[in-house]
Amino acid sequence: MIVEARLQELKLVLPALTPLAGNFVPAKRAGNLLFLSGKGPGKVSGKLGEHFAVEEGYQHARAVGLGLIAVMKQELGDLDRVKEIIKVLGMVNCVPGFADHPKVINGCSDLFVEVFGDKGRHARSAVGMGSLPGQIPVEIEAVVLVEQELG
Amino acid sequence: MIVEARLQELKLVLPALTPLAGNFVPAKRAGNLLFLSGKGPGKVSGKLGEHFAVEEGYQHARAVGLGLIAVMKQELGDLDRVKEIIKVLGMVNCVPGFADHPKVINGCSDLFVEVFGDKGRHARSAVGMGSLPGQIPVEIEAVVLVEQELG
Amino acid sequence: MIVEARLQELKLVLPALTPLAGNFVPAKRAGNLLFLSGKGPGKVSGKLGEHFAVEEGYQHARAVGLGLIAVMKQELGDLDRVKEIIKVLGMVNCVPGFADHPKVINGCSDLFVEVFGDKGRHARSAVGMGSLPGQIPVEIEAVVLVEQELG
Repeated sequence: MIVEARLQELKLVLPALTPLAGNFVPAKRAGNLLFLSGKGPGKVSGKLGEHFAVEEGYQHARAVGLGLIAVMKQELGDLDRVKEIIKVLGMVNCVPGFADHPKVINGCSDLFVEVFGDKGRHARSAVGMGSLPGQIPVEIEAVVLVEQELG
Repeated sequence: MIVEARLQELKLVLPALTPLAGNFVPAKRAGNLLFLSGKGPGKVSGKLGEHFAVEEGYQHARAVGLGLIAVMKQELGDLDRVKEIIKVLGMVNCVPGFADHPKVINGCSDLFVEVFGDKGRHARSAVGMGSLPGQIPVEIEAVVLVEQELG
Repeated sequence: MIVEARLQELKLVLPALTPLAGNFVPAKRAGNLLFLSGKGPGKVSGKLGEHFAVEEGYQHARAVGLGLIAVMKQELGDLDRVKEIIKVLGMVNCVPGFADHPKVINGCSDLFVEVFGDKGRHARSAVGMGSLPGQIPVEIEAVVLVEQELG
């Protein structure tokens, strides 16, 4: 329970998982790869560059990251079964002229490194969408390497 | 041929595959993972929230899903070799204020579950693009787990 | 060093890798899959359909492809360890009415096939973003199958 201890140390509490807004599941495994569905920051709406400043977007991305960790916990039981965060696709809902997507998605990336250490370092794209479901400001999906012997 | 029988039962006919609009292939395997290229609904153009209502988008997404199953069939020979639909990225061509992406992409997700049953349940992101090739309303790519002994 | 010889034959020089604009790494491996972070064409900004014509976008996508090969080289040491290019996600920064995404992303896809031959043929999506970091015109990420015995 190393990762859980780390969460406590950082005073982070995993959010309760809310119902999904479609006919899909929060995550699905293929061998030792766990594919996580795109996740939003909860009931908040607006675009970066119009309704939210970069620092607010960063906090939303951090909230999304915490939600993704909650999904990993639900899927794996024990977060120590996360071997590596492999890939993050960070999608920012923003105006066409927005340019600071990396600074927004760092909210999630910084969290993963704080919580998982070097195992949390990941490949990433941080890009600007025309829109997102319910006009949430950020949606992030991830691919995670997990212990082979699982499930 | 369980899945093929299910297609017949549902009176679904797989579409003929059309030439690709670029220098790529319809799908590529890495071990037991099959990565499917983004697919559109054929010769139809327009944006959700401007030219198409949500229910029309749902039907387009369903047509895309049927096309993706046709690609799986072409790649695998027998659709029973599909072990699990792992991940779907549903991309909606829509106006910046559109918010109902999940309801559109459900057209594909519902089809996958109808055809493959529980194996068809997948992780997913459903998001809004600024534009899509040829202004098609929906493009969907997928990752599928297939039988190891294949190919 | 077959691929390196091919690069010389094509008179292609891999670009030096520049610092990343966020808390992530250029690539990460999960078994024999190498996930490459989204990459841009360097210090160039503007949208397709507004600041750049399709042919210019093609050249930018080709530059991105060369940068992705430079990342593969950095990660693998020897480019002959690339077994297959599996999947490309080509993201075009463009105006909402743009329709020629495949012609732009072919710049990267053509390069991969020139350099890697049949191993370079890949599954692909080529889509239109609302915006990209720093307003770069193109960003491309990729999944590559590498030799199992690696690192």
